[in-house]
Amino acid sequence: MKIALCQIEVSRDKRENIERARDMLLEAGGKGANIAILPEMFCIKYDPSLFERAAEPCPGGECFEMLEECAKASGMTIIGGSVPERDGDRIYNTCMCFYGNGSYAGKYRKAHLFDVDLPGFRFYESETVSPGSQRPLMLHDPAKIGVSICFDVRFPEWMRFMFDQDADIIALPAAFSRRTGPRHWELLLRARALDNQCFVAGVSPSKSSYGHSLIASPDGSVIVSAKEDPCLIVQEIDLSEADDLRNSIPIKTCRRTDLY
Amino acid sequence: MKIALCQIEVSRDKRENIERARDMLLEAGGKGANIAILPEMFCIKYDPSLFERAAEPCPGGECFEMLEECAKASGMTIIGGSVPERDGDRIYNTCMCFYGNGSYAGKYRKAHLFDVDLPGFRFYESETVSPGSQRPLMLHDPAKIGVSICFDVRFPEWMRFMFDQDADIIALPAAFSRRTGPRHWELLLRARALDNQCFVAGVSPSKSSYGHSLIASPDGSVIVSAKEDPCLIVQEIDLSEADDLRNSIPIKTCRRTDLY
Repeated sequence: MKIALCQIEVSRDKRENIERARDMLLEAGGKGANIAILPEMFCIKYDPSLFERAAEPCPGGECFEMLEECAKASGMTIIGGSVPERDGDRIYNTCMCFYGNGSYAGKYRKAHLFDVDLPGFRFYESETVSPGSQRPLMLHDPAKIGVSICFDVRFPEWMRFMFDQDADIIALPAAFSRRTGPRHWELLLRARALDNQCFVAGVSPSKSSYGHSLIASPDGSVIVSAKEDPCLIVQEIDLSEADDLRNSIPIKTCRRTDLY
Repeated sequence: MKIALCQIEVSRDKRENIERARDMLLEAGGKGANIAILPEMFCIKYDPSLFERAAEPCPGGECFEMLEECAKASGMTIIGGSVPERDGDRIYNTCMCFYGNGSYAGKYRKAHLFDVDLPGFRFYESETVSPGSQRPLMLHDPAKIGVSICFDVRFPEWMRFMFDQDADIIALPAAFSRRTGPRHWELLLRARALDNQCFVAGVSPSKSSYGHSLIASPDGSVIVSAKEDPCLIVQEIDLSEADDLRNSIPIKTCRRTDLY
């Protein structure tokens, strides 16, 4: 099975970003990818002041149409990064997903919003974006794929919902900060993979965010990783690696759910 | 505040092991440590066939006495690794802890038992040892210290109990396998530190286990790490590092406990 990490560059121009996403998705399809993942806020730079103007209904907007068209054209399951979703007065940070026949698999609204106050960098996503209140989305073809977004990765209890549903892959669209990326990005993705004995595929935009899109194996090692420049990675993975690990270190049966 | 990691070598001779532990604890006290941590099963090689003969009541046995005496003599809070505890027909894998005035702070019985079936290495701790049914032990002097043992570290939901109680330090006596150590030990400790925004101090015996005792910072980096040989590490830590991180990335307030 091949996973495509579509590390596009994301500008302030929505139309340009959608074209870049479309081009890279079709390129991934041409390279035989079975699953493709876009970054968080692939259609607009991750700046809350730009969300209002770029927002669209989900389903039904331009991004939905482009993603649906690419899924149909390529046959890939697509984890559509995220877009600012308009729903009445509210904006959500929403990932739309599609199966390879073009059917809409559903959406996930980011549950944990990025509210941080680092030295010289105050960022409160919750001032603009409303939090989702549904658990991670699960897809079932061509593997069990759990979907969450960026800051969600810091909450291991959240990742356990996907473990509970036997996720083979956790897909994590992100726009990880360049401030925390060098210290935390790889560590968090590797840890979630090892904790949950599954592959974790994180995709972050080039340049405006930390980039370094990567896939971590169920054993917690990095299988492949990008640098900062825009790039497409199409990587073969072997799902049986997860089964081997689950059999040899049976985390699921060793859990003490009687005590949690 | 200074933490001592007492990476002793552990043989099949209980008396010898207790003497090694005593010597290193007193050496740590002499170097100004405020907290000292011994490895899991510090009094007997981590081999279930040896547990029955080495087991003792907790409190009340030889190990209890040695630990109490060292706490009184040194003024250190001692996280007493673990010993095979006899309680009626049962054996537990039990950590006894002492405050610096020599008072007994309580015990923790390992909750997640090490049952694995790696290629060429089948090990079922639960065939010999009974699992604990209490949550992690918390100590309150000279910092908030949560105590768990080895395999517990693979369960992030377990670590969250200590996070909920504002642990500054998670002390993790371990006898980590040389099979999984090179790939998992450092990653797991760094991840738990970052997840829970606290220090994680893991101590594993030299040679018979993976060694590589280490302290991870709340930011997920390794502050200090041993190699495989027996050694004492006494390391200064600055608890305000944890506060800074908790203020800048407020994981606790960003949690969605309404959804878990």
